[in-house]
Amino acid sequence: MTVEKTIDITTQGRGSYEITDAVRNFVHKAQVRTGLCHVFVHHTSASLMLCENADPTVRRDLEAFMSRLVPDGDPLYLHADEGPDDMPAHVRTVLTQTGLSIPVANGQVALGTWQGLYLWEHRTAPHRRTITVTVQG
Amino acid sequence: MTVEKTIDITTQGRGSYEITDAVRNFVHKAQVRTGLCHVFVHHTSASLMLCENADPTVRRDLEAFMSRLVPDGDPLYLHADEGPDDMPAHVRTVLTQTGLSIPVANGQVALGTWQGLYLWEHRTAPHRRTITVTVQG
Amino acid sequence: MTVEKTIDITTQGRGSYEITDAVRNFVHKAQVRTGLCHVFVHHTSASLMLCENADPTVRRDLEAFMSRLVPDGDPLYLHADEGPDDMPAHVRTVLTQTGLSIPVANGQVALGTWQGLYLWEHRTAPHRRTITVTVQG
Repeated sequence: MTVEKTIDITTQGRGSYEITDAVRNFVHKAQVRTGLCHVFVHHTSASLMLCENADPTVRRDLEAFMSRLVPDGDPLYLHADEGPDDMPAHVRTVLTQTGLSIPVANGQVALGTWQGLYLWEHRTAPHRRTITVTVQG
Repeated sequence: MTVEKTIDITTQGRGSYEITDAVRNFVHKAQVRTGLCHVFVHHTSASLMLCENADPTVRRDLEAFMSRLVPDGDPLYLHADEGPDDMPAHVRTVLTQTGLSIPVANGQVALGTWQGLYLWEHRTAPHRRTITVTVQG
Repeated sequence: MTVEKTIDITTQGRGSYEITDAVRNFVHKAQVRTGLCHVFVHHTSASLMLCENADPTVRRDLEAFMSRLVPDGDPLYLHADEGPDDMPAHVRTVLTQTGLSIPVANGQVALGTWQGLYLWEHRTAPHRRTITVTVQG
């Protein structure tokens, strides 16, 4: 059995946005007891991460790490059509996840205690992002 | 239903090679209406990326970023059996994707408008690379 | 058909631990002929990698690369509740894989000749880690 849904998320610019509950609720409704839930971002300048969900400084630190590793306005890049955060957003996406699967067990998304699922917006301006959730089992 | 196919790709050395159409065509033939398409590279020195498909400088810039982050001939490494690009190719692979899944919707690979799927060859010499595409739905 | 199993692994602290045989054996018993095998780590400070399995210096070099890219005790971080390796473990996890799928063909996990599957412990102290393996086909 496959159940699939598209979700639109409006971001306020760079940062991570929790989508754990949206995915959890969809899996609950899908009535799949054992299987997998796949989440996919249809963009090349936003990605996904499974991240510690208790202390918000973890996500602040991940952002700080990425800003140092992949700084905006880096003269290395030729592609800067949409500004200094354009190419860095593509690099950050390639270094993280566009899609990820999570086990479904006993009809629930089987995340670890400290795992939260986040959409990671890499552009500085607000964007509308489309995600597809697919549950199979 | 599961349909699986192995594809061989000959690379001309380091760089990215688009495989979007090969995957799209296989999914079309698989006659799966709703599901997932998984692509897997059977190697540890080549990987996959979903990347902006309109401006070729994006892929040039990604290559430049990787060449700076993971330079060839880095004295840090002990493993250099096959030359200065040997260990960097393994590092680049671990930092990117060996496998990735894409939703199938209405019988089509549901990539975003600007998403292209690429095999990323990390060795400087040409190689023959094997990919497996699995469609389930 | 979906078959799912949870495996506990005790690590001796930072480093990579091969789980290829554990996964291979489970797939063999699952009696799925064609499909996918997904492996998932229920933690945010340990991850998975598919890595060259012949020369142990490859994994030593990957560890050296990560130690340079994401050093312990980095003053960049605010989150250090559990010590100097706490936040670096989260960063390393986000830069690698929490889950990955491998094709199943002819009833076997279809890894390439040189591909081994490893749990990558990023904390310096020993930990008990939980993995879920899901086979669908």
